[in-house]
Amino acid sequence: MVRAIEWLDVPRPMIRLIDQTLLPDTERYVDVTTVDVLVEAIGDLVVRGAPALGSTGALGVALAMIQAGEESWDAARLETEIDRIRDARPTAVNLAWGVNQVRGSMPRGTAEVLRLGLQVLAEDEAANRELSRRGADWVLAHVEKQEVRVITHCNTGALATSGWGTAYGIIHELHDRGRLGLVYADETRPLLQGARLTSWELLHDGIDHVVQADSAAASTILRGLVDVAIIGADRIAANGDTANKVGSVGLALACQRAGIPFIVAAPSSTVDLTIARGEDIVIEERCEDEVLGFAGSRTAPTGVGGFNPAFDVTPHDLISAVITERGIAETATQAHPDLLAIVAGRRG
Amino acid sequence: MVRAIEWLDVPRPMIRLIDQTLLPDTERYVDVTTVDVLVEAIGDLVVRGAPALGSTGALGVALAMIQAGEESWDAARLETEIDRIRDARPTAVNLAWGVNQVRGSMPRGTAEVLRLGLQVLAEDEAANRELSRRGADWVLAHVEKQEVRVITHCNTGALATSGWGTAYGIIHELHDRGRLGLVYADETRPLLQGARLTSWELLHDGIDHVVQADSAAASTILRGLVDVAIIGADRIAANGDTANKVGSVGLALACQRAGIPFIVAAPSSTVDLTIARGEDIVIEERCEDEVLGFAGSRTAPTGVGGFNPAFDVTPHDLISAVITERGIAETATQAHPDLLAIVAGRRG
Repeated sequence: MVRAIEWLDVPRPMIRLIDQTLLPDTERYVDVTTVDVLVEAIGDLVVRGAPALGSTGALGVALAMIQAGEESWDAARLETEIDRIRDARPTAVNLAWGVNQVRGSMPRGTAEVLRLGLQVLAEDEAANRELSRRGADWVLAHVEKQEVRVITHCNTGALATSGWGTAYGIIHELHDRGRLGLVYADETRPLLQGARLTSWELLHDGIDHVVQADSAAASTILRGLVDVAIIGADRIAANGDTANKVGSVGLALACQRAGIPFIVAAPSSTVDLTIARGEDIVIEERCEDEVLGFAGSRTAPTGVGGFNPAFDVTPHDLISAVITERGIAETATQAHPDLLAIVAGRRG
Repeated sequence: MVRAIEWLDVPRPMIRLIDQTLLPDTERYVDVTTVDVLVEAIGDLVVRGAPALGSTGALGVALAMIQAGEESWDAARLETEIDRIRDARPTAVNLAWGVNQVRGSMPRGTAEVLRLGLQVLAEDEAANRELSRRGADWVLAHVEKQEVRVITHCNTGALATSGWGTAYGIIHELHDRGRLGLVYADETRPLLQGARLTSWELLHDGIDHVVQADSAAASTILRGLVDVAIIGADRIAANGDTANKVGSVGLALACQRAGIPFIVAAPSSTVDLTIARGEDIVIEERCEDEVLGFAGSRTAPTGVGGFNPAFDVTPHDLISAVITERGIAETATQAHPDLLAIVAGRRG
C-alpha cells in the first residue's frame, strides 16, 4: 500500500509526502522540513484528503517545534506558525483536529508531540480498517446482491488518509470479501482526483472499475447501474449534514430518486459537534484557474471568469448512514444523538 | 452572429462548417463536399447540437445528390449514402428529422431539395427566435426577480443551431430585455462545450457569466445562487422525458429540491412522438478516450477503462416546462396532450 505521509528521522527529521499533484504519471516525494513548505504543500494539494490532513497537522506541530529549536523562535512565533498549519485549508475539520490533538502536549517536549503525532497516524489507519469492516457489513445488510456495484466520488483511499482509506476502504473490504461488482469512479473535476488517484489505487488493488465524467454520475445511478454510492467527508455537522468534494450532493439526490443507499464513510474525527448545520460550514473557494483550464492549457476563452467551490454540503436527510470506526449514524432519522454518541466515544 | 452551418454554391457546392472541436482557440472552417467527410464531421462533433444537426441532415441530402451526379451512383447507392448521414449519430432526433424533411422531394430534383434544406435552416432560426420570446415570457412570469440568474449546461447557442440558439436563445432574450443576472455555464465534460463554446458565445454577446465544473451545478442550485435552469434537448419523448447532454438530469434533481424551475427549450422538431418514454431513447455511448483524457493529455492511468454516455434522460416530472416555437408543455402535468398539440401544428 502506498503511503501518502511518512515521518522520517534521518538524514534529518522531516515529513515525506507523495506529491499527489503529479500522480499517476510521476511518483515523486516532497521532503518537508519547514512550516513554509508544509503550508504550501497543503494549499497546493501535494497532500489532500481529510484524514491525511489530520495526520499531517499533528506531525506538523512536531516539525514546527524542531524548526523553532533550530531557528530560535520564541513561543509566540511558534504558536503563530502552528496556527498557519491549522488554517492552511478551511473546510476539512481534520486538519485543525490533528493540530489540536497534540498541541496541548507541547510543554512535554518535541519527542512526546512526535510520539502523539505518529499515534494519530496509526490510529487513523486502524480507524479506517474498522470503519471499512463496519461499512461493508452495513452495505451487505442493505443491498441484496451477490456483487455490489458501487459509485464513488473523489479519492478516499490510502492517498487521502494515513492508510487503507475510508469510502475506498469499504470498497476494498467488499472486494476482499468477494462481494464487489464494478466500481464507477467519477473523474472529479477540476483536479481529477478520481481519474488520477482513485483509478490508480483501484488498478493497483486489482479492482474492476471504469472512470466517468462527473456529469454522468446522476444517470449512472438512475439507470440502475449501481447499488450504492459511498463517499468520504471533510466535515460532518452535528445534525449529519456533510461537506465533501463538490459533486457529492448530486450523487445523493440521484440515490434518493433511485431508492438506493448513499453512505458517508469517515473517521469520527470528521464529526464537528461545534457546527450545528451544513449551512454553517465554510466552503473553500479555490482559484478560478483550476476550472478554466487543465494541465497548463486554458479551456475557456481569455476574459472568462470561473466559479470554483471545492466542496458541497449534502443535507443529512439524503444520507442513509454515516459510517465511522465508533459506530454508524443513520442521519435521516437519528442524526444528533447518534453522532453525539460516536464523538463521545472518541479517544485522545 | 457566428454561423455553424452555411451552404455555398461557389467555387463549388458545399456545406461550410465551423470546426467546433477547435474553438475557442482557433476559428477554422471545414468545407464539406462529400458524404464521407460529412459523416466524419458529424461523428467527430465538428458540427454538433441537435438543431444544427437537423439542418446539416437536410443539406446533406442535397450534397449527396450532387455527389451522386458527379460520381454516377445508382439510386440504391444514393439511398445508402443518405442513410449513413441520417445514422451518423443516434440520440438527436433532429438529424434523422432533417434528412426526412427533404428526402421525399428527391424526385423533384437537386435544386428543390436544396431549396427545402435552406428552408429548414431558415425556419430553425426563426423557430429559435420565437421559442426564445416565449421562453423569456414564461421565465419572467414564473421568477419574481428583476434580474434572473440562470444556470445552463452544454452549448445551445448559435453554434448548436442554425442560428440564435434555444436555451441560449432564451438567455440572450432575457439579456436583451435587461432582465438577466449572472449566468453559470457548466463546463460540460468530457468535450467542454460549455467552457469552450457557450462561454465564447456569452463573451461575444457581452453577457456576464462564470464557468464552473459540472460537479458544482447541484450545489450552485441548492445554495440559492440561481433562479432557473434552462437546457436544450436532443430528443423529447411523447411523455415529455427529455434526452440531453449528460449531466442535465443532475440539474433537474437539484432544481426540484431547491423548488426552482427547470426548463427545456427546443424546436418542435425535437419532439419524437414515436418514442413513448425516456427509457426507449437510445443513448449514444462515445469513445472512452474522451473521458480518460483532457485536452490531448491522458489523465487516468494506462490500463483503466472509461464509461462515456453522451446523454442522459430527465424524467418529465422533473421538467417544469418544455418550451417550443409552437407552444409550451408543462410536462409534469399534461405531457402527452400538450406535446401532441405542439407537434400536430408543425409545418413541413
